[in-house]
Amino acid sequence: MGKTTRKLEVVSPVPADIDIANSVEPLHIAEIAQELNLSPKHYDLYGKYKAKVLLSALDELQGAGDGYYVVVGGITPTPLGEGKSTTTVGLCQALGAYLDKKVVTCVRQPSQGPTFGIKGGAAGGGYSQVIPMDEFNLHMTGDIHAITAANNLLAAAIDARMFHESTQSDKALFNRLCPPNKEGKRSFSNIMFRRLQKLGISKTNPEDLTPEEMKKFARLDIDPETITWRRVMDVNDRFLRKITVGQGPEEKGMVRETGFDIAVASEIMAVLALTTSLSDMRERLGKMVIGNSRAGDPVTADDIGVGGALTVLMKDAIHPTLMQTLEGTPVLVHAGPFANIAHGNSSIVADKIALKLVGPGGFVVTEAGFGADIGTEKFMNIKCRYSGLSPHCAIIVATIRALKMHGGGPAVTAGKPLDRAYVTENVGLVEAGCINLARHIENTKTYGTNVVVAINMFSTDSEAELAAVRNAALAAGAFDAVVCSHHAHGGKGAVDLGIAVQKACENATQPMKFLYPLDISIKEKIEAIARSYGASGVEYSEKAEKQIETYSNQGFSGLPICIAKTQYSFSDDASKKGAPSGFVLPIREVRASIGAGFIYPLIGTMSTMPGLPTRPCFYEIDIDTQTGRVIGLS
Amino acid sequence: MGKTTRKLEVVSPVPADIDIANSVEPLHIAEIAQELNLSPKHYDLYGKYKAKVLLSALDELQGAGDGYYVVVGGITPTPLGEGKSTTTVGLCQALGAYLDKKVVTCVRQPSQGPTFGIKGGAAGGGYSQVIPMDEFNLHMTGDIHAITAANNLLAAAIDARMFHESTQSDKALFNRLCPPNKEGKRSFSNIMFRRLQKLGISKTNPEDLTPEEMKKFARLDIDPETITWRRVMDVNDRFLRKITVGQGPEEKGMVRETGFDIAVASEIMAVLALTTSLSDMRERLGKMVIGNSRAGDPVTADDIGVGGALTVLMKDAIHPTLMQTLEGTPVLVHAGPFANIAHGNSSIVADKIALKLVGPGGFVVTEAGFGADIGTEKFMNIKCRYSGLSPHCAIIVATIRALKMHGGGPAVTAGKPLDRAYVTENVGLVEAGCINLARHIENTKTYGTNVVVAINMFSTDSEAELAAVRNAALAAGAFDAVVCSHHAHGGKGAVDLGIAVQKACENATQPMKFLYPLDISIKEKIEAIARSYGASGVEYSEKAEKQIETYSNQGFSGLPICIAKTQYSFSDDASKKGAPSGFVLPIREVRASIGAGFIYPLIGTMSTMPGLPTRPCFYEIDIDTQTGRVIGLS
Repeated sequence: MGKTTRKLEVVSPVPADIDIANSVEPLHIAEIAQELNLSPKHYDLYGKYKAKVLLSALDELQGAGDGYYVVVGGITPTPLGEGKSTTTVGLCQALGAYLDKKVVTCVRQPSQGPTFGIKGGAAGGGYSQVIPMDEFNLHMTGDIHAITAANNLLAAAIDARMFHESTQSDKALFNRLCPPNKEGKRSFSNIMFRRLQKLGISKTNPEDLTPEEMKKFARLDIDPETITWRRVMDVNDRFLRKITVGQGPEEKGMVRETGFDIAVASEIMAVLALTTSLSDMRERLGKMVIGNSRAGDPVTADDIGVGGALTVLMKDAIHPTLMQTLEGTPVLVHAGPFANIAHGNSSIVADKIALKLVGPGGFVVTEAGFGADIGTEKFMNIKCRYSGLSPHCAIIVATIRALKMHGGGPAVTAGKPLDRAYVTENVGLVEAGCINLARHIENTKTYGTNVVVAINMFSTDSEAELAAVRNAALAAGAFDAVVCSHHAHGGKGAVDLGIAVQKACENATQPMKFLYPLDISIKEKIEAIARSYGASGVEYSEKAEKQIETYSNQGFSGLPICIAKTQYSFSDDASKKGAPSGFVLPIREVRASIGAGFIYPLIGTMSTMPGLPTRPCFYEIDIDTQTGRVIGLS
Repeated sequence: MGKTTRKLEVVSPVPADIDIANSVEPLHIAEIAQELNLSPKHYDLYGKYKAKVLLSALDELQGAGDGYYVVVGGITPTPLGEGKSTTTVGLCQALGAYLDKKVVTCVRQPSQGPTFGIKGGAAGGGYSQVIPMDEFNLHMTGDIHAITAANNLLAAAIDARMFHESTQSDKALFNRLCPPNKEGKRSFSNIMFRRLQKLGISKTNPEDLTPEEMKKFARLDIDPETITWRRVMDVNDRFLRKITVGQGPEEKGMVRETGFDIAVASEIMAVLALTTSLSDMRERLGKMVIGNSRAGDPVTADDIGVGGALTVLMKDAIHPTLMQTLEGTPVLVHAGPFANIAHGNSSIVADKIALKLVGPGGFVVTEAGFGADIGTEKFMNIKCRYSGLSPHCAIIVATIRALKMHGGGPAVTAGKPLDRAYVTENVGLVEAGCINLARHIENTKTYGTNVVVAINMFSTDSEAELAAVRNAALAAGAFDAVVCSHHAHGGKGAVDLGIAVQKACENATQPMKFLYPLDISIKEKIEAIARSYGASGVEYSEKAEKQIETYSNQGFSGLPICIAKTQYSFSDDASKKGAPSGFVLPIREVRASIGAGFIYPLIGTMSTMPGLPTRPCFYEIDIDTQTGRVIGLS
């Protein structure tokens, strides 16, 4: 056991999350850093309990070996909650505070929107949490705010550019873009050479361009109908889903329909999660495509002149934030791409730094959003593809009550008491639901990864029910299946899980296999993923067909695929629990995040801006002005 | 000279601001804190060069004496720039690094919008700057981001509440607002008791309310036409000035016209600048008025249930940020209310902490936005009224070229070379322009404060021109008038100014006098301020008349007045330079920031959202990915 870890004194019944979080005095984050042998020059403090670990740490550790890499996925989610974050944290508390391993937990930064809406916080739960809970859930070290600022600077630049192009001649536009200095000499700024190169113009003096070249350079001629770049806000503001902008008199009637997404849905968040270095981030941000010109060419952030400024806004956000669990083990919080339309995994740089910090024999446990069909699949085929890393073990989190639902249990309605089926023994329902678990196990095994099932126990679960899940998991090919009670007992409740994960890692085959190669067509890649869902085929709308053709023509067909699908079923129909098969997957639309580096087909309508209910969480949230303590967060 | 201060080696001609900023290695901010005798328990590090000074420092220093309090205003601004921030910083470098005084500079946090637009940074200039420049200009410690988040949470809550009220019966609405717990018992959350009290309902059990009381409680019945709360963004996004929201199908046709302001124009920024403690901020945020009910009653953030959550979002922002000047003297950066529609001064808490930290004999130099007619006037009548502090000296910054413009010099156009009149001797023009300076001096003296004129010298200024200003200033009643060259020489160039300021402070009469008492009518207060501008009278639009009546009826007539007027003239007409008089001041509209605590009459149209030009500053801004250094900021 490391010097900084400590074991919890647990109380039963389990108190409210905020009360548990407040009952533990966090360690100064410098102590956590020291335990990781992190030199003070490689981190910046942000208050007493947070520090940004600088990418320079990675340079220094370049020669060192990596630890074991563990990804946490889940069965198909239900409204009952499966406790994936809680299990991720609890497992690390077990490894660090009970099994004497070096360990780092890698999790996503939560969006502030749901914190004030209906979800509350996302720091885990019970005796398995990241603390301080309020600092984790609110602002943290400002990364999401930086993303919002960068996203919206680009959005403002798009509309302003279209406005200025519409009101100026080619020559006036060119002259304004390349204004004379005090000596009357015009020059290109550095970023302009990126556009000139794209246009095949090798001249370096603005005066040498022909009128035709001036026009090509200065006039982006963005087709407003093709703009995919929207504004973002880290607030649940449903009235911004669809808006009309430009209605002020100074904007001269250039109105346009657009909308806001929640900030974590910004492509810049996906860039942050998938980037591998500062220079890589600079290139990704510059090549983000915001729409097409009227001639059909993709228009990028660098064409608009803003790729450098976006990188400057994101320069601190690229460093992951170090925090701690209730038992004093280290946590790296970084990125949080929206799992609906992006890949829903925390960042590559955080995982890479963590693997070096724990070193050989240590463990990095990273969480993948949604069920394993979406989260683990994208972890493997998108995140690992860009990082070059391979997991040694994949965990699938399941609960008895969720499996009962997959087995045909009654509907669950928020605000109403749970049906008896979920709180009394019903082995039959559990066994029927294990069909869902089994498919997730089989799918995950195709990557060549050992699968450990974590059964996140509730007090109402019976021995026979737990045994049924364990048997089904092993029958489906799981390396092991372990009951754990970290919600009620902290790390102590996940010791068996920790031992099983260690064995799975020690017996891992490396490297992993991908589900599809990159050099097949967009449709073939989509179809490979669809088969893993159990689909018998894929159906494309006319719009989707056209978009696939456009992206292929524009040279983007070599990117991995990030399917945007309901998390509540293997299929496109959220009501189909268990393991549906034989359905045809309908692709409504296909979009692309070129900077982040994936094509994302949309199946059904994905909401990218949540709303506020009649009584949002914020009614309970306040500050004790005497102590400065936050109350009412959950 | 303190241990942390250091003298600059200056180069001539003066290099670019960013090059000077990058040529100095900043001290670790803990060294700056130590020099101020600030215990580590009273600050939180944010990286190596920024720290938040916690309000707890103020509690500990409660018994200690205050230093001298100096406010920096200016003559009426011109497009030429007068260097008020530069003078504020340069004076402090002189006091700290040359005159061996304890000194703290108090400045506003700049908005990120103009940094990427046309203005560039706001850290001072030449050899008088706050460093690191990029950290000062971008994100800083996240205060403006916190304001954006809080402002927009309230905005989302307003529209969501109107939506839910429109779709639910009184009973359903009440039941949703007070949902039953697991035992089926309904209860009010704490914040609801604020609304109940306002309605005169003393019952504490939801079940006891009559249907009429339930309706009064649950139905805010906001009149959409009266909503003054807009969304904000810290980006120059002109297309958001006027928008229509709610056009998504789920919003059921509840469209509404509204718009975005730049984040620093949020009332929450004004609250931050004027608050005196955490509990005071909680009350101010809760009583912000967002519009009226259809019955004409003001609806507040607490009525909507969100005052506590707003405070939680702002809990770190209330602590000022410690940074440093080029010569290692301490700077507190805090708040930055938009001078157009708010009071344009940095925060009360920063000034209060600074006065205790420097102690008797030390100096706190705080900057007021815009010309003295607006900035200093609001500093005195709004900020000092709420803080209870009195300045010992008021500085008025002037330049020869700006005074020439006030004397009738030719128009100045951006991008064109300066007219000869501004760069060759013309004593007559200077003398004529001193009429503007003289009125600012006379106005400032009415507060009972000694006035020192700082003549911010340019290399083209002649001795005779400088002497003319000095003579005019003394004739108008200035305590002293001093030529300074801190832009070219750093603190060394402002030593004479420092000595003059020290004398003025030592000879100060305290306390200050206000321009108007609070207990006269709104109109009488407006008229007192108008007279100070040189107006012969005030004219009210019909709308303004009605608004004044409404605010008076609602009980808000006891607040101070914050006039929203062009900064480019004493009058309402920006083209009237010098010291116009005899004009009638037209009040177009009257609004109120009830939480911040002022009524603001609008004269003419105030833009609250800047735009981006054809070639914004962002074209030059990038990162050196090898060193991580920001380039192109100015």
